[in-house]
Amino acid sequence: MMSTDGPPAYETLLWEVSDDGILTLTLHRPDALNAFTVTMARELEDAFRRVNDNDTVAAVVVTGSGRAFCAGMDLSREGNVFGLDESLAPTLDDMRERLDSPEIADGVRDTGGRVVLAIYDCTKPVIAAINGPAVGIGATMTLPMDVRLASTSARIGFVFGRLGIVPEACSSWFLPRLVGISRALEWTYSADVLTAEEALDGGLLRSVVEPEALLDTAYGLARRFVSGRSPVATALTRQMMWRNAAQPHPLEAHRVDSLAMWWTSVHDGREGVAAFREKRAPEFTSAASRDLPKWLPWD
Amino acid sequence: MMSTDGPPAYETLLWEVSDDGILTLTLHRPDALNAFTVTMARELEDAFRRVNDNDTVAAVVVTGSGRAFCAGMDLSREGNVFGLDESLAPTLDDMRERLDSPEIADGVRDTGGRVVLAIYDCTKPVIAAINGPAVGIGATMTLPMDVRLASTSARIGFVFGRLGIVPEACSSWFLPRLVGISRALEWTYSADVLTAEEALDGGLLRSVVEPEALLDTAYGLARRFVSGRSPVATALTRQMMWRNAAQPHPLEAHRVDSLAMWWTSVHDGREGVAAFREKRAPEFTSAASRDLPKWLPWD
Amino acid sequence: MMSTDGPPAYETLLWEVSDDGILTLTLHRPDALNAFTVTMARELEDAFRRVNDNDTVAAVVVTGSGRAFCAGMDLSREGNVFGLDESLAPTLDDMRERLDSPEIADGVRDTGGRVVLAIYDCTKPVIAAINGPAVGIGATMTLPMDVRLASTSARIGFVFGRLGIVPEACSSWFLPRLVGISRALEWTYSADVLTAEEALDGGLLRSVVEPEALLDTAYGLARRFVSGRSPVATALTRQMMWRNAAQPHPLEAHRVDSLAMWWTSVHDGREGVAAFREKRAPEFTSAASRDLPKWLPWD
Repeated sequence: MMSTDGPPAYETLLWEVSDDGILTLTLHRPDALNAFTVTMARELEDAFRRVNDNDTVAAVVVTGSGRAFCAGMDLSREGNVFGLDESLAPTLDDMRERLDSPEIADGVRDTGGRVVLAIYDCTKPVIAAINGPAVGIGATMTLPMDVRLASTSARIGFVFGRLGIVPEACSSWFLPRLVGISRALEWTYSADVLTAEEALDGGLLRSVVEPEALLDTAYGLARRFVSGRSPVATALTRQMMWRNAAQPHPLEAHRVDSLAMWWTSVHDGREGVAAFREKRAPEFTSAASRDLPKWLPWD
Repeated sequence: MMSTDGPPAYETLLWEVSDDGILTLTLHRPDALNAFTVTMARELEDAFRRVNDNDTVAAVVVTGSGRAFCAGMDLSREGNVFGLDESLAPTLDDMRERLDSPEIADGVRDTGGRVVLAIYDCTKPVIAAINGPAVGIGATMTLPMDVRLASTSARIGFVFGRLGIVPEACSSWFLPRLVGISRALEWTYSADVLTAEEALDGGLLRSVVEPEALLDTAYGLARRFVSGRSPVATALTRQMMWRNAAQPHPLEAHRVDSLAMWWTSVHDGREGVAAFREKRAPEFTSAASRDLPKWLPWD
Repeated sequence: MMSTDGPPAYETLLWEVSDDGILTLTLHRPDALNAFTVTMARELEDAFRRVNDNDTVAAVVVTGSGRAFCAGMDLSREGNVFGLDESLAPTLDDMRERLDSPEIADGVRDTGGRVVLAIYDCTKPVIAAINGPAVGIGATMTLPMDVRLASTSARIGFVFGRLGIVPEACSSWFLPRLVGISRALEWTYSADVLTAEEALDGGLLRSVVEPEALLDTAYGLARRFVSGRSPVATALTRQMMWRNAAQPHPLEAHRVDSLAMWWTSVHDGREGVAAFREKRAPEFTSAASRDLPKWLPWD
């Protein structure tokens, strides 16, 4: 069922929500192997922010149209394919003090990173269903997703080194966290394109399935994640896991999880405990658009 | 052999120290599957602080009485089972600026988190011997322990989502560190109860043994950790590993390990090097109650 | 081919650069199983800083002369083998405020840590080829290297506990990151000497090969890492992976990788994209001695 406002109209993405609240977000430039463009970046950023406000969406599955997932930055166009302003001389102070100024935001900020930060801020579970080649930004955009599934025909490549550029989209933060620093360095130094089996062995993927089973596997997992769950508790769980795990001390987690436990115990937790005592299924009534605490997201 | 002051008298815990300095701390409400209460929280916090001051204890093994490890928060009681004050509206500033004020400490702070932070601060090796179901706080309280062993009859569940609440006890800090962020999210979203084998495959457990071998395996490991070791070096090692690994830069570790190396080299390290040269077993004489450096624990 | 200045003359190290830019740095005190001394520490620190300035070196392989990799701190000498000034009473403030003052730098700072921080700062890929026993600092010095290969005759031991001292060389930062906190604690508490197979199972090693294949495997991997690559992109990739992954929030990675992408896109990336479009191999012209951005290394 679509949102009551109708699905957003994107040039490069398909947005489809099932009756049970699973949004399929499909990278859709099949004639170009879904290659990434500045338009696709803006639309992905918009889509993930829209997910947070849309209570008909409980979880997100990201996949690609046709035979590829995403073949990386579209290098077929002329000119500065990265959209950067070569007349600047940006410094780290610029990035810290005026990241959102038009000059830095448009001329320096990595577009893949903007997408990845929007996924990081998402309050619903996000599953990558990698149906074919996922190369460059096509690989790094999957890293902030919660789980990566792939079909046997997937190929994954952190190939930046072949172009004389660096891994982007915050992948230096995400990839070592997922596969360890040694493997992250080997994969980026070598710039190899990995088979699905190699990526599975390296810990990047949760599982590899036959192509025709990929979406059903993703939907089955998404349903297990959200069916019978409190949207508020799920949103807080996702943000707590990603944010707290990277803090220097567990006391920060204690501050936040105390607040989150307090918050959920006076909302859906009350029904959850009552249902448990009465040996019945709970009926949670919270909505993520309305019932999240004001302190989310925290610094 | 008991401490000369006799073992502490707890309502919900058994405290027993062997001749070779292994404390068995047993969750002991067997008629309630050792379900967690506010009293158990206070007693666990007290017990782990007491371990640090008690030189007869070299290492700790935590297990459960009867057929369960800990069935989670005791939800059988009436009223607010989490002990929270629902009349408050706590903010993150409250948690940062007045965490130990009575209002916040008693009305908002997660009791599981207080226990887990006491385990984190422990200066002796801590081993979980998970003998049966470990659910909710029964699962999350094991995460700050150094090693988790389980019997084949163990079941482990991060089941908070079923109740409409969030994972607590700093588990958003600990669990991704132990099993990776993707698996941590899958286990908490799905709220499944895992078999011992599944938890082993996921990296949560060191090993799984037959029920009758569980405690002996734990004791054997504990003895290997502390027999012939300097209590001061062991205490510093535990605190360095947990604290330094989470710092943003290795320079912080260099500051601390330089100090710790300096400290141990003028204490037990002198005997250790002499014994090595003389090809004999060292006789370390330091005591953790007396000989730890003043800078421990550091921020 | 040697640097035009000739190789540095070290007492305890061999420095040899191949025609294809692979530096073999050999720990060379074979009569003492390459045991670590203060001289070796100074020379390793110097060598890794020199690597950064030397454009003939594209990657580094570290190995040992004779049958050992490094048997640890040389404990055969009389006196204070750690080179520490026992008349001091250093505090954490000293380590934060005057780390480089002569008193602290010479009397307190761990020499292994100084070496490891120099390796951390290296701008070229670094591979450990562990050819035999690697014990104490012989084990911990390999942790900041990007990949660890071992021969079947390697033995690896974090044996500090046997001497009544603590793991050093920032290993409390590196080891849990490589093998997980539980295994890091088990290995340091028990102070066992691990076989190559055990270290491989624990995730410390990339692979284990027959002794006669060790160096060729290392060279093959090094060539895959640097052949046809931009030295500037490689340097930035290494520093980004090590530094960004440990930050509390991916936004820090976004700041840095945006700058790094901007920088490489106006240097070697221009050629990389052109070559890709023209379906030919790129010819990168950057030099790490000259073309790294001023903001590297960043805080």
